[in-house]
Amino acid sequence: MPLTGHSIIAGQATPGSAGTFRGVNPATGDEIGPEVTTLTAEQLTAATQAAAHAFPAYRATSPADRAGFLEAIADEIEGIGDDLIETAHAESGLPVARLTGERGRTCGQLRLFAKVVRAGDHLGVRIDPALPDRTPLPRPDLRQRMIALGPVAVFGASNFPLAFSTAGGDTASALAAGCPVVVKAHNAHPGTAELVGHAIAAAAERTGMPAGVFSLVFGQGNETGAALVSDPAIAAVGFTGSRAGGLALVAAAAARPRPIPVYAEMSSVNPVVVLPGAIEGERAWDLATAYVASLTQGSGQFCTNPGLLFLPAGEAGDRFADGVAAAVREAAGQTMLTGGIHDHFAAGTERLGTTGDVTTVAVGTEGETQNAPAPVVFGVEIAEFVSDDSLADEIFGASGLIVRYEEVASLAAALERMEGQLTATLHGTDTDHDAARTLLAVLETRAGRVLWGGWPTGVEVSHAMVHGGPFPATSDSRTTSVGTLAIERFQRPVCYQDLPEALLPEALREDNPWGLVRRLDGELQLPASR
Amino acid sequence: MPLTGHSIIAGQATPGSAGTFRGVNPATGDEIGPEVTTLTAEQLTAATQAAAHAFPAYRATSPADRAGFLEAIADEIEGIGDDLIETAHAESGLPVARLTGERGRTCGQLRLFAKVVRAGDHLGVRIDPALPDRTPLPRPDLRQRMIALGPVAVFGASNFPLAFSTAGGDTASALAAGCPVVVKAHNAHPGTAELVGHAIAAAAERTGMPAGVFSLVFGQGNETGAALVSDPAIAAVGFTGSRAGGLALVAAAAARPRPIPVYAEMSSVNPVVVLPGAIEGERAWDLATAYVASLTQGSGQFCTNPGLLFLPAGEAGDRFADGVAAAVREAAGQTMLTGGIHDHFAAGTERLGTTGDVTTVAVGTEGETQNAPAPVVFGVEIAEFVSDDSLADEIFGASGLIVRYEEVASLAAALERMEGQLTATLHGTDTDHDAARTLLAVLETRAGRVLWGGWPTGVEVSHAMVHGGPFPATSDSRTTSVGTLAIERFQRPVCYQDLPEALLPEALREDNPWGLVRRLDGELQLPASR
Repeated sequence: MPLTGHSIIAGQATPGSAGTFRGVNPATGDEIGPEVTTLTAEQLTAATQAAAHAFPAYRATSPADRAGFLEAIADEIEGIGDDLIETAHAESGLPVARLTGERGRTCGQLRLFAKVVRAGDHLGVRIDPALPDRTPLPRPDLRQRMIALGPVAVFGASNFPLAFSTAGGDTASALAAGCPVVVKAHNAHPGTAELVGHAIAAAAERTGMPAGVFSLVFGQGNETGAALVSDPAIAAVGFTGSRAGGLALVAAAAARPRPIPVYAEMSSVNPVVVLPGAIEGERAWDLATAYVASLTQGSGQFCTNPGLLFLPAGEAGDRFADGVAAAVREAAGQTMLTGGIHDHFAAGTERLGTTGDVTTVAVGTEGETQNAPAPVVFGVEIAEFVSDDSLADEIFGASGLIVRYEEVASLAAALERMEGQLTATLHGTDTDHDAARTLLAVLETRAGRVLWGGWPTGVEVSHAMVHGGPFPATSDSRTTSVGTLAIERFQRPVCYQDLPEALLPEALREDNPWGLVRRLDGELQLPASR
Repeated sequence: MPLTGHSIIAGQATPGSAGTFRGVNPATGDEIGPEVTTLTAEQLTAATQAAAHAFPAYRATSPADRAGFLEAIADEIEGIGDDLIETAHAESGLPVARLTGERGRTCGQLRLFAKVVRAGDHLGVRIDPALPDRTPLPRPDLRQRMIALGPVAVFGASNFPLAFSTAGGDTASALAAGCPVVVKAHNAHPGTAELVGHAIAAAAERTGMPAGVFSLVFGQGNETGAALVSDPAIAAVGFTGSRAGGLALVAAAAARPRPIPVYAEMSSVNPVVVLPGAIEGERAWDLATAYVASLTQGSGQFCTNPGLLFLPAGEAGDRFADGVAAAVREAAGQTMLTGGIHDHFAAGTERLGTTGDVTTVAVGTEGETQNAPAPVVFGVEIAEFVSDDSLADEIFGASGLIVRYEEVASLAAALERMEGQLTATLHGTDTDHDAARTLLAVLETRAGRVLWGGWPTGVEVSHAMVHGGPFPATSDSRTTSVGTLAIERFQRPVCYQDLPEALLPEALREDNPWGLVRRLDGELQLPASR
């Protein structure tokens, strides 16, 4: 199917009347794909109204039907074939192998949520049976389950055109929870969005879901975003992007007559702490090489890019820094996602490089395509670092700052001053455990994920993952945007008191027709099938 | 121990320098108890800093130690004896029997959370073991648990001087989660707050908790509240009270450089829907009597008071209305909690009674004490009700509005227009099930608890209870302020990647030293002990 450049509202290709834009190949600067038409505020309402209309039927779907829908989306996305990868490659500049992996992750994520929906643990069933003879007062029959919040607005990310966009983690978890979804396509990859959007619409039709369960809308950036978040039919928001963008949506949501939750994943420099044992002898050079590889991978365009590294003062630290410099000088720039992102990177590195007391450890070379700036690593002493909070601001791209520290106490104090992070990483050996314990107690209060060794890029989609963290890493630290816990963002508990069996939802019926885990008088009970 | 009228900061009685006020007996208007001294903004900081200082040690306490602390609080509160009940009675006008029951509920709630902490299910342990041989990429070892958010500010409610105040549900659940608590005492019951505050401080000392784990502060209403919520050391807020008060705290929390969650339980009229079967024949009169009893109980000063009732048009409905009128005329006013609450009630009923198309069904008699206004029930047709949203505003006290409806469709439409509620109740019989199904689908999206029969007052403290609901019933519908699920408000998930066993928190260690329920690769595993 050729691209149309039109929004998809409840299954129908819908031309927009607000304006037009074109996709751009960031490697060449060329316009690609059809003219994309953007929706007026009134046209946008058609999508949110369709979602509201679909909500009662969609939230009432059985676990099997809803899981089937999620699996059908994965099948349809795979069914697009090479077109999807080629379109995403042209629009994002990301390598084909990376995008192929991202497609696998996207489809795997949908199938994982299908499994979660079938098991039904997220329904959180709690039953406190009636105690009619209790004194002084009898206890009524009380049954609790989670229900879906309502239509969810999802804002796709530029850096993961598949896994964090149209059918990404926010969409998958919201649909799994029983919420219709309206996706605002990221303007950096309209063709990719349209292809995936049609796949979701086709899956909805094939599995008998109400058409309004999904819409994809094209709009003009900020205005469309604010209109969507302010729409009375929208009940929650998922967003991955910049701090300014996320905060604008948080403000719009709070200003509504009926405020709604916003799950915005925004900004993180992902501190890495190198402890002395990690750079003893030969280790220093190897670790430096690995650090630069992680920092420059994908042009550093990861939420979990290790932008900040704390390094011991002294000779071993110097060897590590030398290794970093050597590796950076050999690193070539790669195409960034958009010209705008490249401009921000250039301005951010220019600002950091000219800040007093900040030195330049090494600069790589520019890439051969457009928008492929040279990777760069800066250095600063910890005393200067703690005296200027702006040094910890995120620069999206392959830019690192190495902070040299003398002792663990000053390091812990510097980490305590830091804002919330998606991740924090410790590198050390057995000899560093005492220092690590001190630092872990701080880092776990500052980050959503704490690593021992390795690098924070590469976010596993599984049950125990947390891709979240205190503000401003996210706008709501109480959850995660990756992993199965993400489904809990889009539901709320309801208690049913003394309902007759005939009126109880299936999930709460005495005979447990869905075979759910239940908490009976506070005690977890596994169904016989498990 | 005689009352001092001073705040309790980290175990120390602390006189305030901002100003003074006196407790008032609402039944007589007399001032009672010592002069209460209020804290300056700077003095307030001593409490929040003490909480921040206590946080690392307190959150690291073992389940057994933390549970022991909660149980010690219950013991200490019971140890106060009659003094507590007498003080609360004098300050609130609430009957001694009611307060004795409320004390039992408060202590039972603390002991229930102790049990929850010991079991440890709230830690939400998830383990995805490493898959070193997976291709194309190995999977790291990922372990997730919930950690405490940080110091919590709690604002006590006027209408439950024990169960929703100093050692009430917010305090109990925050302490259970591992969060230090700073309680802003409600100025309507300073003596009760001080007695309970000393009990908590004594329990902390007796069980070896850091002193800053609890503080009780007296202040001048709104300014102190805003200062507390804006304090950088505070990580979350629990509040029960008016819509205006709750929204002010929500705004203050959102305006912080680092926004924090606010759990405000604010405003609800708790619609009751009478279906035709419920008032056939003799039933009409009995149900009318029960309704008035629920409406006027405790002077109607319950968050879950049934302020709005939908009644079928026609003869059976008329009989119900006659029964209501007869019961209301026999009902005498009871002392309200404060003169201010009484004034609000008088203004609210005056406004409603003079609204066009609203009729007065019946008025009771004033009580013999001060601040004991006559109960009153108003009536209106559904067409007028849906045309004036202000008719659904809460009037705190024994004031009811009966809305007459013709058919279920118009009723469902009226309910869909309503704001979020703590509860919604259906009265009917087997013959009403079809209508009930239609209405339940609406009501569960509007309320935190749905009842079949009975009355919404009387909120069970158990595992399946939800005392919450969509805005403006609460500021955050995703949880509850009563029942064991409330603990989840004060924690967030952290993932630990590839940590060596020696650095893992106890909750996540391979040998499961705390005997916790764990989710292994997504599958719940009960410990052998369960």
